[in-house]
Parts: sequence; C-alpha cells; structure tokens
Amino acid sequence: MSLTETVDESAPYIGVLPSGPRGSIADVEGVTVGHCTLDEGAVQTGVTVIRPHCGDPFVSKVPAAASVINGFGKSVGLVQVEELGVLETPIALTNTFGVAAVAQAQIRAAIQGNSKIGREWSTVNPLVFECNDGYLNDIQAFAVNERHYNDAYEAASVDVASGSVGAGRGMSCFDLKGGIGNASRVVEVAGRSYTVGALVLANFGRLPMLTIDGMPLGRVLAERAAEAVAASAATLATSANAETSATSAPPSKPEQGSIIMIVATDAPLDARQLKRLSLRAAAGLARTGSVYGHGSGDIALAFSTAYTVPHESDFVALPPMLADARLDPLFRACADSVEQAIVDALWSATSVTGRDGHRRLSLHDAAPDLAQLLKQSS
Amino acid sequence: MSLTETVDESAPYIGVLPSGPRGSIADVEGVTVGHCTLDEGAVQTGVTVIRPHCGDPFVSKVPAAASVINGFGKSVGLVQVEELGVLETPIALTNTFGVAAVAQAQIRAAIQGNSKIGREWSTVNPLVFECNDGYLNDIQAFAVNERHYNDAYEAASVDVASGSVGAGRGMSCFDLKGGIGNASRVVEVAGRSYTVGALVLANFGRLPMLTIDGMPLGRVLAERAAEAVAASAATLATSANAETSATSAPPSKPEQGSIIMIVATDAPLDARQLKRLSLRAAAGLARTGSVYGHGSGDIALAFSTAYTVPHESDFVALPPMLADARLDPLFRACADSVEQAIVDALWSATSVTGRDGHRRLSLHDAAPDLAQLLKQSS
Amino acid sequence: MSLTETVDESAPYIGVLPSGPRGSIADVEGVTVGHCTLDEGAVQTGVTVIRPHCGDPFVSKVPAAASVINGFGKSVGLVQVEELGVLETPIALTNTFGVAAVAQAQIRAAIQGNSKIGREWSTVNPLVFECNDGYLNDIQAFAVNERHYNDAYEAASVDVASGSVGAGRGMSCFDLKGGIGNASRVVEVAGRSYTVGALVLANFGRLPMLTIDGMPLGRVLAERAAEAVAASAATLATSANAETSATSAPPSKPEQGSIIMIVATDAPLDARQLKRLSLRAAAGLARTGSVYGHGSGDIALAFSTAYTVPHESDFVALPPMLADARLDPLFRACADSVEQAIVDALWSATSVTGRDGHRRLSLHDAAPDLAQLLKQSS
Amino acid sequence: MSLTETVDESAPYIGVLPSGPRGSIADVEGVTVGHCTLDEGAVQTGVTVIRPHCGDPFVSKVPAAASVINGFGKSVGLVQVEELGVLETPIALTNTFGVAAVAQAQIRAAIQGNSKIGREWSTVNPLVFECNDGYLNDIQAFAVNERHYNDAYEAASVDVASGSVGAGRGMSCFDLKGGIGNASRVVEVAGRSYTVGALVLANFGRLPMLTIDGMPLGRVLAERAAEAVAASAATLATSANAETSATSAPPSKPEQGSIIMIVATDAPLDARQLKRLSLRAAAGLARTGSVYGHGSGDIALAFSTAYTVPHESDFVALPPMLADARLDPLFRACADSVEQAIVDALWSATSVTGRDGHRRLSLHDAAPDLAQLLKQSS
Repeated sequence: MSLTETVDESAPYIGVLPSGPRGSIADVEGVTVGHCTLDEGAVQTGVTVIRPHCGDPFVSKVPAAASVINGFGKSVGLVQVEELGVLETPIALTNTFGVAAVAQAQIRAAIQGNSKIGREWSTVNPLVFECNDGYLNDIQAFAVNERHYNDAYEAASVDVASGSVGAGRGMSCFDLKGGIGNASRVVEVAGRSYTVGALVLANFGRLPMLTIDGMPLGRVLAERAAEAVAASAATLATSANAETSATSAPPSKPEQGSIIMIVATDAPLDARQLKRLSLRAAAGLARTGSVYGHGSGDIALAFSTAYTVPHESDFVALPPMLADARLDPLFRACADSVEQAIVDALWSATSVTGRDGHRRLSLHDAAPDLAQLLKQSS
Repeated sequence: MSLTETVDESAPYIGVLPSGPRGSIADVEGVTVGHCTLDEGAVQTGVTVIRPHCGDPFVSKVPAAASVINGFGKSVGLVQVEELGVLETPIALTNTFGVAAVAQAQIRAAIQGNSKIGREWSTVNPLVFECNDGYLNDIQAFAVNERHYNDAYEAASVDVASGSVGAGRGMSCFDLKGGIGNASRVVEVAGRSYTVGALVLANFGRLPMLTIDGMPLGRVLAERAAEAVAASAATLATSANAETSATSAPPSKPEQGSIIMIVATDAPLDARQLKRLSLRAAAGLARTGSVYGHGSGDIALAFSTAYTVPHESDFVALPPMLADARLDPLFRACADSVEQAIVDALWSATSVTGRDGHRRLSLHDAAPDLAQLLKQSS
Repeated sequence: MSLTETVDESAPYIGVLPSGPRGSIADVEGVTVGHCTLDEGAVQTGVTVIRPHCGDPFVSKVPAAASVINGFGKSVGLVQVEELGVLETPIALTNTFGVAAVAQAQIRAAIQGNSKIGREWSTVNPLVFECNDGYLNDIQAFAVNERHYNDAYEAASVDVASGSVGAGRGMSCFDLKGGIGNASRVVEVAGRSYTVGALVLANFGRLPMLTIDGMPLGRVLAERAAEAVAASAATLATSANAETSATSAPPSKPEQGSIIMIVATDAPLDARQLKRLSLRAAAGLARTGSVYGHGSGDIALAFSTAYTVPHESDFVALPPMLADARLDPLFRACADSVEQAIVDALWSATSVTGRDGHRRLSLHDAAPDLAQLLKQSS
Repeated sequence: MSLTETVDESAPYIGVLPSGPRGSIADVEGVTVGHCTLDEGAVQTGVTVIRPHCGDPFVSKVPAAASVINGFGKSVGLVQVEELGVLETPIALTNTFGVAAVAQAQIRAAIQGNSKIGREWSTVNPLVFECNDGYLNDIQAFAVNERHYNDAYEAASVDVASGSVGAGRGMSCFDLKGGIGNASRVVEVAGRSYTVGALVLANFGRLPMLTIDGMPLGRVLAERAAEAVAASAATLATSANAETSATSAPPSKPEQGSIIMIVATDAPLDARQLKRLSLRAAAGLARTGSVYGHGSGDIALAFSTAYTVPHESDFVALPPMLADARLDPLFRACADSVEQAIVDALWSATSVTGRDGHRRLSLHDAAPDLAQLLKQSS
C-alpha cells in the first residue's frame, strides 16, 4: 500500500486516512522545523523550533489554542495564548530547565525584529514547551543557552528530522528511547482538501503500557525483559526497569515524563475550534497506552496557517471559517497524526547513552526482531 | 445633562459613556424582550425572554459566550454554549424551580419551528438562567409552566420594562426589591459606533453592601433601619434584616441570591472575544458592592448580533472582526451598562408582598428621601 | 483466567488490573443503581439513577467533579458541581428531551426529604445527564416523566443490569445497539485497596471506528456489511449505514450521539483530584475508537464515597487524602473501567426496534460469529 | 478611628473590616516579603519575593490556586498550580523581561536545597509573576539577573515596604507612580479569627478611571491636568497623557500594564476554595476603576498557610476545612484587602524618573492638596 511509504517502511500505519507527502508537520504549507542537538557526554539535550510561517509571527500572529491534558508541566506562554487566541513567536521545545534560556532568546529575537517591543508596543509572549530529559541528560548542568535557540531557528526547513534530535535528544518513552516524532494526514472536508500535521516531543510512559496500533507490544517486550533479567541477560535490562518483570501487573512506578503535541492545520479555524482540535491529541495519545499519568505534562497546542492576525489593525479579515459540524475529519486526522507521530518517534530514535552511564535503547535495538513481533501480535 | 434623561430621571448616571436611545438591551438593533409576570398571592414570579434577533435562532445561531463568576447556580445550556460558541434558542430567565418547565417549552418551540430536531437533525440546546426568588415567591409551588414561556416570547418587543416584572417579579436585591434592570452604552471603536446593552436579573446582596455610583448608600440605609428598629418603627424593618443593626459591621448572614447579566452588542466579535466581554460584567457588579458571595449564582452571557451562524453550512462567512486591541471601550461599556442596569432594577422595582406575608420594599419606598440622601453622600 | 468470569464470559477483558466482584459501579461500597425502562412501540427510552450512598445526598453531599471532553450536550447541574465540588442529588441519566422532567423530579424528591429547600435553605442542584436516543426512540414524544425517575430511584440496588435498559434502552453505539455498561477495577495504592467503578451510557461512534481491546473489529464488520449490501443481503444493512461500504475510508457521516461516563471510587480524593480522575475516562473512551466527535456530548463525572460534606456545618472533617503522586493506579483503573464498561454495553445490549421501524442490532446479532472474529483479529 | 492608623495616615480606609496589626500580607503568620530594588538611570526595576512560610516550599508545598482575570500576561508556573493545587517555590514578582532570569534563579535555589530535583525527583515548578514597567524602566536592558532574586529572598522579613520598591520600582498605575501595595483584613468565621493579606504589584489603569473608595478622584485630577495643559503648566502634564484633557470622555488610549494580586490566608482552604477566594480580588480591583483592560495581565493567586503538602508521602493529613458556606467573610476580606493594597501602592509610591527622561509623579506629588480633594469629593 503506497500510503505506508510516506513513513518509515517498517512502522505500522495508523488508521485509514492518507498521509501528506512528507509525513511531517511540514506538510502543512509554510511550516518549517529546525533542531539544535547537544550530545556530549552527560549533556544529551537540545532545542527544537517550529516556525508556523516564514514571516515574523509577532507582526503576523498565528491563531492558536492549547489543551492542557495533564498540567504537571512548566511550559510558558499558555496564559496569553488562552486569552488572545494567537501565538506571536515561533514555538520552541526544550528540556525543563532550558525553558528560561529559550524564552529569553525568543524575547531577544522578537526585539531584534521589532525594536518597539517593550517600548511603544506591548511586550512579547514567549512560547516554550518542555519535557524532563533528566534520565539521560544532566539537566542540572543548564546546558541549553540562547544560542541554541537561534541555531535551531536558523536550521528550520521543510525537511524535518525525527528521533533523538533537537529537544528530543535526551527524551525517554515507554522506558525506551523517545524524542521527536512527525506525521500528517490529509482529509477532504466540504469539498476541499486540508492537511493536519503533528510534531510530538515524546517522553512519557512505562514499557508495559506501550501499545502500537492496538497491539500490546509493551507487554510482550516487558515479558521478554523479565525473562532476560531472570536469565541474567543484560541487553534490554539497561533500559527496561525492574518493575517490568511483573509481566501481567501494571507498572508500579509512576508514569513520569511528558509529551508535547504540536498540531498544525491549513483549515480555517478560529481559536475556539483550534482548542477543540487540540484536545483530540488526547485520543491519539491514549491509543498508545497513556492514561495521562500524574507526573506527566501532557499538553497539545494547535494552530492554523489559513490566516494571520496583524499586530496592528482595527479589524481582522477572516476567510470563510469551517463550520463546527464539519470538524470530524480534522478531529480524526489530529488523533491519527499524533498517534502516528508517537510511533514515528519510537521508530526513528537511536539508542543514547547519557549521564552516569544511563542508557536508553531504541525500540529497534531493544527488539531486533520487531517486524516479526508485530506480525505475531497482529 | 441630556444623557440622564434616557434612564429614570432620578437614577444616578454611571460613568461618562453615552446611553443608547432606549437605555435598554433593545438599543442593540434586533434585540427584543418580553415578560410574563405571575403575581397572585404567594406566587410572585415570572419569565423573561430575550430574543437576539427576530428570526429563528436554531436556524440562524447567535455567537455567544458566558463567564461563570460564581457557580452557585442552576442555569442550563452553558456546557454547549462554551463548546460551540453559539446559542440556538431565545434566552430565558425565570426562578430556580421554573427552569425545567421553561427549558421544556424552549424545546417544544424549537421543534415546532423545525420538525427535524431530534430526528434528522441534532437536538436543541435550551438556555435558561435563574435566580432564587423564594423569599417572596412560593417557589415550591412550581407555578411557572410552559405557557408562561410562550407568553413572554410572544410579548417580546423593543419596549423593555424594568423592575418587578417577568422573572424579576419576586427577586430581592440588597434586602430591597430587585428584579429586571436595563441599560446601554454607545462607544466609538475604530471609527465606528457600537452599542452594548445589558439586561440583568438582580437578586443579590445585603443592604449594608449597597453602593450607588461609588456612594455607600446601603450603609446609610442600614444605619437608619437600625435606628428605626431601635425606635420600634417597623416600616423598613420588614425588609432590612436584623444584622443591619450593626452599622459598621459587615453583614453576618451570607449573601444569597444571584444575578444574571445578559450583555448584547452589535460589534463583530467571536465567541472567545464575547467571553472576554462577558467577564467585564463582573466589574460592573463589583462596583455595586458585590463580592460574588458564596451563595450567589453570578453568571454573565454576552452575544453579538453582528452575524449569525447557519445551522447547516460548510463554511461560515464572517464580517471583519474587531481586533482584540480595540476592545477596551466595549469592556468599559459592558461594566458601565451592567452597573447601570443594577441601579435601574433598584430604581424601577415596586414594593412586593408575597408568600407568608414576606415583603420587600422598593428603594423608593425604603428611602422616600432618596434624592436628598444621594446628594448628601456625593 | 478467573478474572474474566466477573464480566460476560465472551467479552474481552481490558488490561491487567483485577475487577471487583460484581464488575459494576456497585463494587464501590454504598453505590446502587436503578433503572426504569420504557419500551412500547416508538417509545424506547428510560431513566437510570445512581445513588452514591444510601442516605440523602442533599444532607450528606458527595465530593464530585466533571470533565467535559466534548460539550455538545444538554446535561444540567455541572456549573454548581464545578464551583462547589459536590453533588447533592442522585445522578440521573435519561434521553435529551427527558432532562427537564427528571430534573423536576429530583427537585421534588429533594424537597420531600427537606422541606426547607427553597425557603430557609438554598435550592437544590439537580444533576441529570443525557444522550440523544432519537434514532430508536420517538424523542419528540416526551415520554419520560417524573414518575419514571422515582421508579428508577426506588429500584436502586447493588445488582446493576447492563445493556438495553433504563436510559440505555434506545441508545446506539458504533451503529450497533448501545446502552448501559458497567465495570470496575481494584488497585493497591499506598498499601490499601481501592475500587474504581464505571457506569457508562454509551451512544456514540460509527461502525468502522469500533475497536475492541485494540482490535479493529468495526472495520471487519463494516467490510462484511458492505459485502452483504453488495450481495443484497439485508441482515446487517439495517443498522450499518451506507458509508460503511467504503471499507478503508473513514466514516463520512459525522459522529453523533454521546457518552456519559460516571466514575465512582472509595479512594479519599478532593474535588480537584476527582476532576483529574474523571478526565482519564477520555483515555478509555479513545481506546474504543472515539475521537470525541463534534456532535457528541462526552462527559465524565467522578465522585468519591470516602467521605461526605454536610449541608450545614462550619468545618468539614476529612480523612487523610491520597497524595496526587499516588494517583496513577486510579487513573489506570478509571481508563480501564470505562473502556470495559463500553465493551460491556455492547456485549450486554439486545437488539431493539423502535420508531418508524428503526432497528439497531446488538453486537451479538450483527456478528453471530463474534468469538471467532475476535480470535482471528487477535 | 483607630483602624486607619494601621495604614498610611492619609489613605482612606476601605470598608468596615479591621486590618491586621501590620496592614500587610505579613499579617498572615509565617509570610515574609523581601525586595531587591534596581534604580540607576534608565534601569528602574526590581524583584519582590513572597515566602509563604519559613521552610522550604518544595519539601512542604503550599496549597494555592489562581484566577486569570485577564490573560495578557507572561507569568510562569500557573499550569502546574492549576493541576496540582500547590506552589513549591517562593512567589516572585519582577518585570516582564526579567521572568526568565528569576525563574532560573528559583530552579537553582530549589536544586541547592534539594539535590535530587531533576534526578531522582521530579523537576521544580518556578512561579514568577510580572508586569511591564517599560515606561520608566529600560526593559530591553534585561537588567534583572539571578542574583537579584537571591537578594530579595535573603531580605524577606515581616516588615514589608510598599511603593516604588522591589518589582514595583518602575511600575505605573493610573498614569501615576504605582508599585507594591499591602493590606490585610481580619474576619471572624465560625467562631475563629482568620486573616487575609494582600500584596499587589500595581501597574494598570489610566488616570480618568482612578476611583478611591468610591470617589472619582481620577476624573478630578484629569480635569485639573487638562486645565494645567491648557495653561501651559507642565507639572502634572509629564505623567498625565494627552487624552486626559477630554474631561468627561473615557480614556481613548487602551489600558496597558497589569496587576498581580497575591492573597494569603491562614484559613484552612483547599485549592478549589482558594481559587474561589482568588477571584474575589477582581471585585477589589474593579472598585478602583479597572475594567480588566485588554492589554492588562490581571492575575490573582491565593494561598493558605493552614497546612502544607509534603513532597513525599502517601497521604496528606488535613485540618478540618472551612465549609464553603462560611467563605463570605473571607471573600469580603479579599476584595477589601486588594482594594486597600492598590490604594496603599498609590499612597506609598514616590515619584520616579527613568529611561529617556520619562517620569511618573506620585499621587502625593501630582496632588499636593490630596487630603482636601478627598474631603471635597466625599
């Protein structure tokens, strides 16, 4: 089936909607993504920047809204997005303790583009999302600085890497290596074609919960890991923690980590509709096994590229807006894209060794016979 | 000053913005209001209906949003308004235990207009707000029935009565007679003229808190009442409760009752902006002395008449929408209209005797020398 | 495996957590449920009542909170639950146009128990949830009346029927017969055992989306239906709509209907924590194939039986409350219970013929070879 | 009246509730406040730190909740406070572009106290509020750094300065000099005495809106300023902008700036109740003339010192919690404290000259005859 060629050959294809040509958030026209990756010794982290359009988002603000599915998180900028329904900087992702440096960099960049900010004009609202990569990355080293944001910004293009890159460098997911994932879906609504793209920063879940396209792959791997542990085989044990030995028991350690889900669309939606759309990321997330654990900052933000809101103007001209009763295909595309993007993160990530010898195996390294395993469970 | 002629001659004029010609919510073109008043013996209650336009709001839905300032209330319909940003029935006000009958009437009326509802089409979302008029009205009698809603609907016109009418018949406000209040303000925004109109159902507050245009009229009246009580004069004592004798002490009994604040505007705003607008009703309310007491259902709903959302269509065409940065005059108009409407309710209400001989004096009856009092305190 | 004996023998068992002995919401001690079923001709509807404890919930209020996952719904009572964090009537479920009658019945019952309501005391907050059963039930007939609520209330017991009963009588789910579903899970937290029980009113989804324990059963059935249609076989075609013939395409008709998810627990949680818990119902719902469609009123309410809040008192004594960091097992139990309860609704429902000859096949009738199908897809 | 001695002698006393002995947020036992003020040339800014108790709030978290009245603001930390109902760092206030540095300092301080943070333990949630002091302060200079947070933290004591100090150094309010304000109120609830304290960072409003204890002082001053302008008198004109010449017209320039309102109480309230309490700050704010302007970040946060929540524990033991029906005196105390604290900010502030020769006159300097003016208007 030709559709599956748009994502990694071996990754299961989620759902029945077609993907866009790139299988990434950049399938939404105008969206570009850049990564800056830090990977020296105990520092395994980075910054990822999503530019909603090629212009200055302070001057041409982007309609946006977010859903906080679980608020154990330290993202900044959401108060103003909720109030005004727009974002006015690129979207940045980094580690929890890198937020301040990245926010500062966003402010500086906005001022550089608009010297009136904080003087004749109002201030600018930085928008930074984060996950805690402290298992692999020495987060106390505060390695991320303003330059890294600028580098990621400069690197933005339509060719979007997935896996252990950018902000995803040090992230863990289901006790395996997580990171950046991408996907997109194309739907027909009211006679027109719209694209929904998702980029996730996946850093959540315990192995036994991992579900791939409905298959309980995590339980299978956890059982094997338990057997491996029993047989003193150490290969997988490095990344699969002790509790995974209880094959049929739920994970006894709390779910930590987080997931940030950025959803873009070219459909003409207002902020209220984008909030509705963003919540559907929770459906895609749940299908991978998450129950939005207590310790997880699970946040989805959706934006539309169908129009912009000028910084200075009396009125805002809008295109004909899609009726709410026509949103279901977009809702499905959002859930499917997010699920696919999480799968993509797992499939794309490479194994990483970080601070104190901590190591996360990629899914491929943890399950070299992955293709067969999936065939068996399906 | 000619402006003050648009409201009751003796009522202080709030703020500096001009009123519309009617000084009521009907100054927003297309809005009409009807009352059905029940006033026999222990039954002192009624229904008020606000029609946002002269058409069928199920077919041509009206952009709307609400702010729940204090949620001790039993209104129905807000869940769907919050999700979809539109209302699809006229807005109805009644007493707390009349909500079910009125909601049922709204459903029946919608079906009568659109026989596909609940069959080929989705169901209809009734929108009923309420306050508890149980001090004057025998609320346990369930006197409000579906016919009363229909009567109020039929009576809708641009001539809007205030005071002890419709849903306001049995309401109390600051231990005085409350009820329906109206006001409007006209503002210039971006070179155009917009009107904000407010209709309130005022049923909140204890006498010592009453503040009129910044003047602590309630404290003055409460002191007089205390003296009157001391002198065994019973005139005001009927309505001013015991605790008012402590002249400088705050009311010891909890604030009960509620206020519903319906705000209309012809400015082109989307649901997110209307939610922002509706919250400014809280400012007008606070200026009359309310601190949004625990037992109060303080709810504001704002709607725009600048466009409608068709029940069936793929896209929604919108006029140029007002920029958020231009909203301040409308915010001020909302706060001033709501404060003025509360003043109007007190000025317009007539004294009412209801169940078990309970009686609420109108402000005029409680303070026959009101004009002088106001002059002294200002 | 003995666990599966607690639910219908043939229904797949969701997850790895053990069920309570009854496999219903009544596994949470003190909770009882009653149904009143109306099933004559075009009237296929009813009322279901959940009593959180055997006392009067107005006098002994129950800590509760809700998550509105998609707000296309007409439930009443949520504004006050959100503000005060308690419910004060039994929880009632019925059809969309039965809400008013049932709310009225709740008010009357509360007054009967407490004659001060609406007089010396504040009013009572009815709490009624609904789904639209208009495909099978003549919803325009307004068949539900106050007596039906009372009958359901009187019938409450720990033996909880599932399927085409009570409010579930006329409900559809994935183009099949839906209705009432039950499940429970038991978890160990901090050395203690807690139960989470779920009762759902399932009335959502299109056939191709149906997913059972990760298996795309709906797609299989939709393909068969399409073939059956092609072969002029009418058996399933009655309930599977035209769009299901596009086997690999997503449903082209919007998702309509709704799901109400009531979650009970004996864990000591406050309202904020119960809101967190209730949101995890969204995860269980998503795993069955829902993306919270536009036309769906998807609402979850969670309550705790660990303590009550007296109507009149200065202070509220609380047991030691569970720490937020210990909630993950309860979150999992909530998601699993809700998913299992949806499965239970489908497994328990019987086929129903209603208005205008409309007929919904039960899953068993639509797929007589269900056991084999499941074995094949797993 | 002896009460007024607890605040600045000449400042009007708001309401009838008694103040605590210090007339500051430090009247709530255990609360201390420290300022670090930067006042060299174009740099007129600073940091203010509120310590809710003398211990480590990461180890002993503090129940808290916030209300975003208008979300044009860049505060950080509210997402997690909303989810978990606790704060875990001291509360910091600074200018809009100092947030990142201060958040970073909070993270570093938390790690210094608890080296497991970001390793064995979860990360820490910085909590920083801000207003834009860009009129007086060269905000583009990014003058605030981590050391300033530490200095403010070290300076914390029960002696709390108000006015042009700490984060308030560069703030403007009603076109006059704003800054830090303090107040407290003591109430009797259920036979016990509770204190509510407020600290505000006041940076909002245009002159004509200024209302002091119900008196339209701002209109009087604006008229005088207009006359002064007409007479080429420059004294007040420096701070009173052009639009104030339209004496009876509303301000034509949008309200900019913000207000942060921190409310402390020793009453035993949970997070839901603290959210209710925090919203009452909006009432106090409205009474000073604010309508929560578009460009204003109006945020209130309330916390309780009645108990703490340990970082690590299975259960949280709580004192008997105050019943919701007893909250009205606290609501009033919150509104009065916030209004009084805004008055205190205006009365305490000294005139400041900052960047580009911008100057804000203090209220006393702008109206040397203030006492007489107030007597006339009352």
